Amino acid sequence: MHVRIRHRVKPFRTVAYDRRRNAVVLIDQRLLPHEFRAIALRDYRETARAIRDMAVRGAGAIAAAAAYGLAQGAAAFDGARPSSFERHVERVYRALASARPTAVDPLHAMDRVRQAMGSGPDVPSRKALACAAAERFASDQVAECEAIGRHGIRLVREGARILTHCNAGALAFVDIGSATAPMYAAWGAGLRFHVYCDETRPRCQGAALTAWELFQHGIPHTVIVDNAAGHLMRQGEIDLVLVGSDRVLGRTGEVANKIGTYTKAVLARHHGIPFYVAIPLSTLDWSTRSGKDIPIEERSADEVLGAWGRPRSGPATYVRIANPGSSARNPGFDVTPPDLITGILTPRGVFRPRDLWPNRHKLA
Amino acid sequence: MHVRIRHRVKPFRTVAYDRRRNAVVLIDQRLLPHEFRAIALRDYRETARAIRDMAVRGAGAIAAAAAYGLAQGAAAFDGARPSSFERHVERVYRALASARPTAVDPLHAMDRVRQAMGSGPDVPSRKALACAAAERFASDQVAECEAIGRHGIRLVREGARILTHCNAGALAFVDIGSATAPMYAAWGAGLRFHVYCDETRPRCQGAALTAWELFQHGIPHTVIVDNAAGHLMRQGEIDLVLVGSDRVLGRTGEVANKIGTYTKAVLARHHGIPFYVAIPLSTLDWSTRSGKDIPIEERSADEVLGAWGRPRSGPATYVRIANPGSSARNPGFDVTPPDLITGILTPRGVFRPRDLWPNRHKLA
Repeated sequence: MHVRIRHRVKPFRTVAYDRRRNAVVLIDQRLLPHEFRAIALRDYRETARAIRDMAVRGAGAIAAAAAYGLAQGAAAFDGARPSSFERHVERVYRALASARPTAVDPLHAMDRVRQAMGSGPDVPSRKALACAAAERFASDQVAECEAIGRHGIRLVREGARILTHCNAGALAFVDIGSATAPMYAAWGAGLRFHVYCDETRPRCQGAALTAWELFQHGIPHTVIVDNAAGHLMRQGEIDLVLVGSDRVLGRTGEVANKIGTYTKAVLARHHGIPFYVAIPLSTLDWSTRSGKDIPIEERSADEVLGAWGRPRSGPATYVRIANPGSSARNPGFDVTPPDLITGILTPRGVFRPRDLWPNRHKLA
Repeated sequence: MHVRIRHRVKPFRTVAYDRRRNAVVLIDQRLLPHEFRAIALRDYRETARAIRDMAVRGAGAIAAAAAYGLAQGAAAFDGARPSSFERHVERVYRALASARPTAVDPLHAMDRVRQAMGSGPDVPSRKALACAAAERFASDQVAECEAIGRHGIRLVREGARILTHCNAGALAFVDIGSATAPMYAAWGAGLRFHVYCDETRPRCQGAALTAWELFQHGIPHTVIVDNAAGHLMRQGEIDLVLVGSDRVLGRTGEVANKIGTYTKAVLARHHGIPFYVAIPLSTLDWSTRSGKDIPIEERSADEVLGAWGRPRSGPATYVRIANPGSSARNPGFDVTPPDLITGILTPRGVFRPRDLWPNRHKLA
């Protein structure tokens, strides 16, 4: 199967819940951009596996998948004893939590669901409360992304040429995305602009996912290698850089994001181009005191030494590019200091990075 | 065949001439890093095809291939009439020149050969003069690269961590290379250091060729994605950036080189890291008045939208990475201004970019 949905908005949410079938339904992102397929996961163990195997990725999307997975696991409990139910829910929680052990968003999301169900007097009502809480988590996330779009639309001028890095789009969330939210809002309001997608080696989420999303929306875009952004900036062909983040330190304004983000921030500063970071509130980390304390995940060398793609015939495959025998470093993230960032775009408005902490009551 | 020559210096020159067989012998770089194979081209038309099909690439290497190809074509002339010989040589010249129409180095190299053979009194002596001139061109180039190494060795400190971009190595020349010349000289002198190879998307010459070369020499090196250099610099893990160039403007000190070079120069300046460009004298362009006048080749979008590599089984193949239907920009080169360059390393010593013009008599 090789579906191409040309110029149609992503037909449904990246992650959703089918109550009738007690199934978590999500877009299998491992197949994108070559194939669009939604999969229905009938059991919380399948949902955990989809998170672990990265059928679903992106902080917001895996958080929603975990929240739904917990509700799904609770709904499948066959019994009436509250104590057995609690033990079962604990098992489900741990299975989902261990699927991506370093991610913090799934834990926060599941904690919300577990807290909501705790107030139910019996097992059926707890199941119903879990389900409602998971749905509320997802719709709250969509509302936050919509708010990012409302605040961010003023950053997008008619005719703007916007650079983005990696995928902080609808596919990384339940819908709409963070860095893409101002683009979708502006496009919907009739503004016309052009997006440059950094391919974002080594996993190429920009070329594979962001380009796919923008293509579905019919938003004009161009894929470039990560090497080309500096040249385009020097030629005066970039007006705005808009990226997402995996973690923003509320105390310092430092931004951890996909490797290469820092380079783009240095380039933007060198050329006097505004550099914005778009995030939902859950990305704010109020406790970590310094960017130096953010662990930088060192990922598999194979990602750097090769690439995944689809040959002229047959399914997508891994190919080795680098010299066999050579080794690689593969830091997954980098940290951008606040002085290189024009603004942090949140559902509560735009803040200078150093103004996050003084405004923490507004952003809690 | 899948040869790995572990920790052995590249066993022969990238381009050479076998007089007995009247063959141009070169390393087929399209097969690297997965397979090492030298091919013997028995006819000037085969040599032209090898240049066109990029079996040989790199300004210095294709210049030597063209010089040898012209001598080869002359040697194959069957007759004694000088006027017929001249017409034949002209045909050979045009065939080799049209193999890579934008490259200027093959023309300069062939002009040298043609000029040398012009002084011969008859056809046999002109053939001999052509062959000697091509050999002299190649050995002069090797001597220039050795001189770059002698002048550049002082840039390499014991324990240094050196970043390089693309391949300005032995494979891009007859031997030794330009950016790699100080590395090979320093390694030979017993200094120990580490090289970070930018993979250099889209064609990944850093991961495929520079890593291969360094591996043959046993020089410790690590492949990184182009996105990672900024992060490593910020962490204090890079001491020196050393790159080659396709064209250096003698009048302004501007440097045209593989896309992404400019980004590395901006990053190096931001972090106070020395940034050197190593070139033979033939790379100096004394006539072009501004970097704006350097044509930036826009290459095929397919290079950006996919990659070449070797699957787990079978030969190397092209795989599509990006969203089908999305377009790409693919500028092949960028221009780095002189204020971002610490020094231009030449066979005649190191010069500040703006000091090239005042020293043009030394560099002619």
